Amino acid sequence: MFSSGKVVQLFYDVASPYSWLAFEVLCRYRNVWNIDLKFKPAFLPGVIYGSGNQPAGMNPSKLTYIVSDLTLLSEYFGVPMFQPSDLSDKDTLSAMRFVTALAEKEKEGDMLVERVSRELWKRKWRTHQDITQPASLTEAGLKAGLSANVVKEILSLSKSQPIKDKLKSVTQEALEYKCFGFPFIVCQVNGKAKVFFGSDRFELMAYFMGEKWMGPHPNKPTAHM
Amino acid sequence: MFSSGKVVQLFYDVASPYSWLAFEVLCRYRNVWNIDLKFKPAFLPGVIYGSGNQPAGMNPSKLTYIVSDLTLLSEYFGVPMFQPSDLSDKDTLSAMRFVTALAEKEKEGDMLVERVSRELWKRKWRTHQDITQPASLTEAGLKAGLSANVVKEILSLSKSQPIKDKLKSVTQEALEYKCFGFPFIVCQVNGKAKVFFGSDRFELMAYFMGEKWMGPHPNKPTAHM
Repeated sequence: MFSSGKVVQLFYDVASPYSWLAFEVLCRYRNVWNIDLKFKPAFLPGVIYGSGNQPAGMNPSKLTYIVSDLTLLSEYFGVPMFQPSDLSDKDTLSAMRFVTALAEKEKEGDMLVERVSRELWKRKWRTHQDITQPASLTEAGLKAGLSANVVKEILSLSKSQPIKDKLKSVTQEALEYKCFGFPFIVCQVNGKAKVFFGSDRFELMAYFMGEKWMGPHPNKPTAHM
Repeated sequence: MFSSGKVVQLFYDVASPYSWLAFEVLCRYRNVWNIDLKFKPAFLPGVIYGSGNQPAGMNPSKLTYIVSDLTLLSEYFGVPMFQPSDLSDKDTLSAMRFVTALAEKEKEGDMLVERVSRELWKRKWRTHQDITQPASLTEAGLKAGLSANVVKEILSLSKSQPIKDKLKSVTQEALEYKCFGFPFIVCQVNGKAKVFFGSDRFELMAYFMGEKWMGPHPNKPTAHM
């Protein structure tokens, strides 16, 4: 397979709405920038607490800002999402183990990881459905196109020690890059590496890679959502 | 004077390098977007602690990121700056009182506030000169084009109670907008208002105002620095 030499690793957790924006933009630019995009499902509380950071939502002013910011950003990025009325941070541990198990199982490519992650974000940030229970993960998996048998296998695998360890090790990998929150994007181009935090550095990332940023809709750059 | 109905208030402190980026970009876009740009010199520790936030630089991982981020951003934005070797947060209280006094004194326009603020940022973030002492502020004022007499007057005024109160009240104004750090940009367009934090929301701000973002160099959009 032809390699462009541009490897972009996206560390994310479906708990993070900004990660969803970054995920969709990188999926749209994958062929435009000819990048080797690697999904790195990880666990947000692991990097927040592991880096000595504090969840942004704990500060009332920041929380007010995030709600306002996400409203406009999601419209501009064309990724409809709505603030859940209940902002308590429901655990995404089971969901991220489920995605990790799928990533381990999916030998070729990452189409299924992409689809399942998107379904989980949709449930959490658009339709406000549960993603903590096995029945919810099953529903997301089926909607993403997995067969009932595969969902069952992935669910079972997601509870195994190797998968628990894998999620921990990917989270640790992020911490080794000095990650303190998601999305965290590690960009490697011709031997140079640069990390980018958040969903607001794509223009800078393009500059770093010698590519062009055409806004969040590269295939219809003049469109306004 | 013709008003476009687009008022953009920039709350800043020369302690903040990201504010410098926002300041230069907004100055470049002032005529391009036809905005009524208002400088709001304020005091960073006042909004950090007043909002219950923590200085980003206190977290080692965030600090590492900020250094890397600013290096690339300052190159891309064409605002050369270099991390001082001594990162201890020297107080900018005198400097911001000096700018506040100048803003109060400058009845028409804000050309001098713009020039003096830029000189102070240059000293702090490019040449790493002191900005805490009267002699340093005098030097910055003279370099910005103030006469020796005016500098003397502004220095004296900057120590007066009304100026101390004015800096406090602008900082308080920022807090009332739920500000938690700088740059903090309040954008008012045809009765709608939106706040933007950081120097990475200009594309979104343009979308909000119905304007076009052409990168950090609107007058030479194809240039790469």
